[in-house]
Amino acid sequence: MLQELPTLTPGQYSLVFNMFSFTVATMTASFVFFVLARNNVAPKYRISMMVSALVVFIAGYHYFRITSSWEAAYALQNGMYQPTGELFNDAYRYVDWLLTVPLLTVELVLVMGLPKNERGPLAAKLGFLAALMIVLGYPGEVSENAALFGTRGLWGFLSTIPFVWILYILFTQLGDTIQRQSSRVSTLLGNARLLLLATWGFYPIAYMIPMAFPEAFPSNTPGTIVALQVGYTIADVLAKAGYGVLIYNIAKAKSEEEGFNVSEMVEPATASA
Amino acid sequence: MLQELPTLTPGQYSLVFNMFSFTVATMTASFVFFVLARNNVAPKYRISMMVSALVVFIAGYHYFRITSSWEAAYALQNGMYQPTGELFNDAYRYVDWLLTVPLLTVELVLVMGLPKNERGPLAAKLGFLAALMIVLGYPGEVSENAALFGTRGLWGFLSTIPFVWILYILFTQLGDTIQRQSSRVSTLLGNARLLLLATWGFYPIAYMIPMAFPEAFPSNTPGTIVALQVGYTIADVLAKAGYGVLIYNIAKAKSEEEGFNVSEMVEPATASA
Repeated sequence: MLQELPTLTPGQYSLVFNMFSFTVATMTASFVFFVLARNNVAPKYRISMMVSALVVFIAGYHYFRITSSWEAAYALQNGMYQPTGELFNDAYRYVDWLLTVPLLTVELVLVMGLPKNERGPLAAKLGFLAALMIVLGYPGEVSENAALFGTRGLWGFLSTIPFVWILYILFTQLGDTIQRQSSRVSTLLGNARLLLLATWGFYPIAYMIPMAFPEAFPSNTPGTIVALQVGYTIADVLAKAGYGVLIYNIAKAKSEEEGFNVSEMVEPATASA
Repeated sequence: MLQELPTLTPGQYSLVFNMFSFTVATMTASFVFFVLARNNVAPKYRISMMVSALVVFIAGYHYFRITSSWEAAYALQNGMYQPTGELFNDAYRYVDWLLTVPLLTVELVLVMGLPKNERGPLAAKLGFLAALMIVLGYPGEVSENAALFGTRGLWGFLSTIPFVWILYILFTQLGDTIQRQSSRVSTLLGNARLLLLATWGFYPIAYMIPMAFPEAFPSNTPGTIVALQVGYTIADVLAKAGYGVLIYNIAKAKSEEEGFNVSEMVEPATASA
């Protein structure tokens, strides 16, 4: 929703600002890590590391933009942060999710090491459902009509359909594939799936609460704005950087099981010796 | 045309802004992908991946500039976005195309794996025609005379000659070459050629419509401006990032057919052992 921003105390303003900046640092550092560490896993799993790197790269860009937008939206006056009248562009989140959420599902499929003829269609299906989920949420997010049974509620409901469908695929169809892996890998894959459920699950909750309890959680009080921005940010760090580290561990475990040993890898420099 | 910008609603302004920002993210992330993924294809096809990377790098830079120019051209006043009097520099698109459009034709030639003596002259010819097409379109675009049989119409017509010539080469001369490939590769090459026709075809249509139907599509209403910017942006994402992914798939398919297998790739170090 394009909404009036409330006046914030320096503590409230800074908490949000610092969380955004923390996230720029985390995402860009994760990008460097995923790029550098991809050679620690067997070649067939490197593509999932590359997708992890793309996700945090895109998120790093958007958090940089969000940080600047937050800075432009407020100015310190008489000891309080007053809205300047510039728009705080929360839509950056949707643009980010439209790109990154499908990639997160693709990452999981790629690291499983499925046969090629299963991998492609499954990644395409999950990616499409993830993009659909984001696209259907957007009209509700920007709508002025925040009623539970109004525009916001309707699009929120429509957006939930692909979300539930994704969960169904992850928890039933992929259940067998996960069971077939070694116990170490299947635990890690189970964790990645749960992390995805928990972090993505934050969004529909944050979307619904102000609708369901408009009086207890009015959407433009300082408390709600700060809690929402901090909550979204923590969910994004876990869903992208944290999830990427889990994917790295899965790729590493599978590489070792398949006989790829990074510590025996000779350095390129000695190759010509 | 240098024209007066209309007042926009926050929704219209933000839609264009967010599309530009989305494109910055997509182009730069694609750059990272093409650079990282070039080792997944046989060495002879890596040069086409590098050209893909250059195209999206250049486009990412220009979209960053376009985003800033859009931001400077408008300011929020009394709930509406009013033009500030700063120029919205649409000419960034021409500068971008002058560099990227010839490279897009070169990419296609390089990935075909033609013999060296055919490849060079063909890439040079297509690249030259593509640059000529952009150069000839520019005087019409900046002209104040928007009549169908005036300056705009004349340069538009001249620019169409190299465009048709390129299509002639792609659809007749290269037809045989495409037919000679395996069925998987020839389908992908056919798709790349069609994507090029469809996305490039958007430009002459967008160029001609306000000329041909000045009353139905007056060039400076909010609807026309938003539709044009969103349309150009979608066409650019498909023509550069989408096309690059297609080229990657072609390079990968050809590498596999020629016995290059990334998952069995020997490490650089052990290769010479």
